[in-house]
Amino acid sequence: MMDPNVKVIVDTMWVLVTAMLVFFMNLGFAAVESGFARAKNTVNIMSKNFVVFAVSSLGFLVLGWGLMFGNGNGLFGLEGLFCVSGADNSPATGDAYQGAYSAISWTGVPLWAKFFFQLVFCGTAATIVSGAVAERIKYVSFIVFSFVMAMFIYPVVGHWVWGGGWLAKMGMFDFAGSTVVHSVGGWAALAGAIILGPRLGKFDNGDIKAIPGHNLSLATVGTFVLWFGWFGFNPGSTMAADPGAISHVAVTTNMAAAAAIMSATVTSWILMGKPDLGMTLNGCLAGLVAITAPCAFVGVGSAIVIGLIAGVLVVVAVMMFDRLRIDDPVGALSVHLVNGVFGTIAVGLFAQDKLTGTATGDGLFFGGGFKLLGAQLAAVASVAVFVFGAAAVTWLVLKAVMGIRVSREEELRGLDIGEHGNEAYAGFQVFTTA
Amino acid sequence: MMDPNVKVIVDTMWVLVTAMLVFFMNLGFAAVESGFARAKNTVNIMSKNFVVFAVSSLGFLVLGWGLMFGNGNGLFGLEGLFCVSGADNSPATGDAYQGAYSAISWTGVPLWAKFFFQLVFCGTAATIVSGAVAERIKYVSFIVFSFVMAMFIYPVVGHWVWGGGWLAKMGMFDFAGSTVVHSVGGWAALAGAIILGPRLGKFDNGDIKAIPGHNLSLATVGTFVLWFGWFGFNPGSTMAADPGAISHVAVTTNMAAAAAIMSATVTSWILMGKPDLGMTLNGCLAGLVAITAPCAFVGVGSAIVIGLIAGVLVVVAVMMFDRLRIDDPVGALSVHLVNGVFGTIAVGLFAQDKLTGTATGDGLFFGGGFKLLGAQLAAVASVAVFVFGAAAVTWLVLKAVMGIRVSREEELRGLDIGEHGNEAYAGFQVFTTA
Amino acid sequence: MMDPNVKVIVDTMWVLVTAMLVFFMNLGFAAVESGFARAKNTVNIMSKNFVVFAVSSLGFLVLGWGLMFGNGNGLFGLEGLFCVSGADNSPATGDAYQGAYSAISWTGVPLWAKFFFQLVFCGTAATIVSGAVAERIKYVSFIVFSFVMAMFIYPVVGHWVWGGGWLAKMGMFDFAGSTVVHSVGGWAALAGAIILGPRLGKFDNGDIKAIPGHNLSLATVGTFVLWFGWFGFNPGSTMAADPGAISHVAVTTNMAAAAAIMSATVTSWILMGKPDLGMTLNGCLAGLVAITAPCAFVGVGSAIVIGLIAGVLVVVAVMMFDRLRIDDPVGALSVHLVNGVFGTIAVGLFAQDKLTGTATGDGLFFGGGFKLLGAQLAAVASVAVFVFGAAAVTWLVLKAVMGIRVSREEELRGLDIGEHGNEAYAGFQVFTTA
Repeated sequence: MMDPNVKVIVDTMWVLVTAMLVFFMNLGFAAVESGFARAKNTVNIMSKNFVVFAVSSLGFLVLGWGLMFGNGNGLFGLEGLFCVSGADNSPATGDAYQGAYSAISWTGVPLWAKFFFQLVFCGTAATIVSGAVAERIKYVSFIVFSFVMAMFIYPVVGHWVWGGGWLAKMGMFDFAGSTVVHSVGGWAALAGAIILGPRLGKFDNGDIKAIPGHNLSLATVGTFVLWFGWFGFNPGSTMAADPGAISHVAVTTNMAAAAAIMSATVTSWILMGKPDLGMTLNGCLAGLVAITAPCAFVGVGSAIVIGLIAGVLVVVAVMMFDRLRIDDPVGALSVHLVNGVFGTIAVGLFAQDKLTGTATGDGLFFGGGFKLLGAQLAAVASVAVFVFGAAAVTWLVLKAVMGIRVSREEELRGLDIGEHGNEAYAGFQVFTTA
Repeated sequence: MMDPNVKVIVDTMWVLVTAMLVFFMNLGFAAVESGFARAKNTVNIMSKNFVVFAVSSLGFLVLGWGLMFGNGNGLFGLEGLFCVSGADNSPATGDAYQGAYSAISWTGVPLWAKFFFQLVFCGTAATIVSGAVAERIKYVSFIVFSFVMAMFIYPVVGHWVWGGGWLAKMGMFDFAGSTVVHSVGGWAALAGAIILGPRLGKFDNGDIKAIPGHNLSLATVGTFVLWFGWFGFNPGSTMAADPGAISHVAVTTNMAAAAAIMSATVTSWILMGKPDLGMTLNGCLAGLVAITAPCAFVGVGSAIVIGLIAGVLVVVAVMMFDRLRIDDPVGALSVHLVNGVFGTIAVGLFAQDKLTGTATGDGLFFGGGFKLLGAQLAAVASVAVFVFGAAAVTWLVLKAVMGIRVSREEELRGLDIGEHGNEAYAGFQVFTTA
Repeated sequence: MMDPNVKVIVDTMWVLVTAMLVFFMNLGFAAVESGFARAKNTVNIMSKNFVVFAVSSLGFLVLGWGLMFGNGNGLFGLEGLFCVSGADNSPATGDAYQGAYSAISWTGVPLWAKFFFQLVFCGTAATIVSGAVAERIKYVSFIVFSFVMAMFIYPVVGHWVWGGGWLAKMGMFDFAGSTVVHSVGGWAALAGAIILGPRLGKFDNGDIKAIPGHNLSLATVGTFVLWFGWFGFNPGSTMAADPGAISHVAVTTNMAAAAAIMSATVTSWILMGKPDLGMTLNGCLAGLVAITAPCAFVGVGSAIVIGLIAGVLVVVAVMMFDRLRIDDPVGALSVHLVNGVFGTIAVGLFAQDKLTGTATGDGLFFGGGFKLLGAQLAAVASVAVFVFGAAAVTWLVLKAVMGIRVSREEELRGLDIGEHGNEAYAGFQVFTTA
């Protein structure tokens, strides 16, 4: 048997290094979102994406962690609720664990390593929202909303799936967070985008007007960073340096991204006449989001199929949201919501537990019938209702209390001047467009 | 003796983490190449550099891995050829290994870890080409060429050196790929640059016209990322967490880069009157490419000498390619081809196998005579003939079948509009130059 | 007992991976500094930030390492002084160690791993200077000064604290370098900023003129990279994969940054009327600098308090330096000097050695009295005198010998053309401002 001290060391290294990679995704989100938006709103978007991780850090420490992982009922945690202050004898695992956070006692690393890893996931869910509400939201309202996400909305869903809650008990599986992170972010973003309404000029006179991003270099850099960070997100979700599993997950993750890049590029080439870089980049992210739930549960061939589908889905979804007159400046809904849902369902379709040595049972396409798929669909539906509802209430309260949208004048001139008194590109000749 | 389970774990962590760093180099290449090119071609360059890794992932999975590492003859692999589907009992090593990929059975990590690590190297070779053919190549032709690189050209040379092929048997050594990755990319790029011809306006009326890059911030960021990624590339090529070797390689890699930065900067200061940032950056990359083959085989002092030479070589090579009227917009040939060749030869000059505990035999400068040097030169010559030939045939076939160069009008206006229908910097006042 | 071979392996991996992250901070510094400066000086700033690590690598190898870690007296090392060539039987530790570098024999990794880790810290100290002297310093003079920093100034202070010198013997503690790295860089920067004088137009007619940065996207990207790199800087300073310590340090580091972001943002909102992105970013860096000394010695709650204070300090300090008519284009003094000093003092206030399992004794706020605080203050004062003095002498000698400031004409037009003959953004319409 392996020296238990050694196991704690290597597992802790793995958890911390991958958590750092996930942290780094904040840069990726900031770069993608600001790159896809206009120059006049760059300071605002960068500010939002920067501050949101600080907000998440504080909110998840104060309450989020406890709600998510504290011993409790099927809906939320109750023990050790505030400030990660519950009893805990980590890195003891399994039966040897005694403490307030039993649901995460399967990983044998110190408590602060668990917290740090889970924190960077919480931050990701919160930052997803910022893209969909970009270029028109009030800075202070976004900050408050982010606190609500990190302290309440995200941790509750997290408890259901990863905190020993009712979805976990039902046999629902989400390896690295297609549902817990991406669809939670996506549903909250959808509520925000609808309640805020579209940007000025986006849907004037019934037309759909393309509002091009100001810096596609930055958006591409950001997407590379996200892809890189995903090698922390998915392989790190083992929370243990299990050689077979982390190697397998690294490859399924990469192949889904690669396949989605190709299918999104080809789809945009066919539907739009030319291979659109934005679609290529969002295709990559779509593939990554879709493989996030199933990455450890499916074979490499299935990962490619999942990626191919995700790449098509994201292009179609971008067009669909435009048709629905829901304005999502960076495609966050098409990437995180649509493919978060798809990835969750994909577990129910493509899982092969003998092949991957996991406990999911097989998916529909591999003879497992509808059992697993049913649990996955229950998760999709319940998360949709809860997150969309909770987020909508939050947005509406914020709207009533402090307002959530900047003034028409401010939006036209740019949020950078209005909200922050800065310009992002002093000295450059920049034309501001409606 | 060390617990074999522990060894598999730490080696797998090392292989995966360093592979992730090498993956991240894709961002570096994208940023350097687009930064050194004009604003009007940024979307195209970003698209190429983004898609090329997807293409490499699929191509290397389908055929490249099997050709490179499958048991076969001296020229290419034959067993387990398609989709990494051969028999394999990794992480078993040495005599305990039974499977289709014996040549890489010296590293005790799971098969998918081996694949992922080798894949990111394949992607690097493919992406090197994109710089030299930038600002004039058709997008679709580049994609097809990249498939040929990843599925055929790169893996064949890889088999010769790392897959147990004829160069390996001859006693040729290339620790991390000065030949296998950089010169392979370089020769393919040279064929492309010659067959495509120079950009419009580059060599008009017999003059050499400097065409300045549009974003040297981006190019600098990219070079830092590449330097960072090289700490995966070279130390990771141990494919095992051998403390002495990985520490040594980290230092030789860094010192060669540092020395090359200084010598390239000084050389450009002397020859051009001022210290050119582009030369400083390419000097860094030149030093890194040159130390890639010898990093584990030479002492730290030799690494500095190799770096100093590389930094001079790259400046002189840039001027030489201009004189030869071969248009390489980003200096890819001077960096990867010239210094890939030099680094390969440097093994034959500077190797010290007693000092480094390796099996190369000593190089010429340390009393080893011409034996090792001869094997290195044989590799340089044979790889030149094969890769330049295979790439030239591929480019010429593509030229005949679908064309490889955009129209004169498109080139003048920029490939972003012509190939992609996007602009990189919407809202900015940008002057397009011939 | 744990297999000693395994311990060497995991510790070496940890040291190298975290060292790579610290290396990556060079990108962060380059991006932050150039982003906060004007477009016309971008090539120069990027050149300085790029070359400085090459200079540090060579200087620290040749002499710096030996001065810092060589066995010697309380002031500097004397054994194994040049080129890391002293006797050494690393990774032997403690009493088993025999060699010239006893002060760092507590970490059981190969000599080159120790060197590489320490080198990246040296490079950080050197690069801090570049921000404060930006937009007016001669390139060649900066290069020479950086050699002096890496070969002499930084290693001497390093010896005092980490090389077994007089401050270490006195019981002063600086876990990851608030003093050794940040305040050393800060004092040298202060000397440079004063001797150089302010940029043209900064303080004309007694007014303080804001000179906005040209690229706040770049500055934000850079700050994210620094935050990311700090997860190498602080947790890596264990120089061992100690699960409890590295998890704890990752969390204190992150929470201090988060708290400082919030307090700096709120402070700027109150004092300046709007939440300034530059203050938010510098707030983050301030929190990170301040927690660098105490990260392993204080609890998570204290880390938050330290961060909150740091975020306020940095905003006030920026205003103070303006009032003092000391021109620091990027806020390097407010971040690294002020918070480097504060972080050092914070150890003496917040340390809890029972809680953290360290040997500092308790700080003033936890019943430890003034003993620890006194040692910390002695370090602050002595480092101030030595570094400010040594740096001032160096700057003044350079001023006399080769000049340190570019001509008025060059400064107005931009250092990119004057020093390098390049522009950073060819093709863009950029207005240059005084």
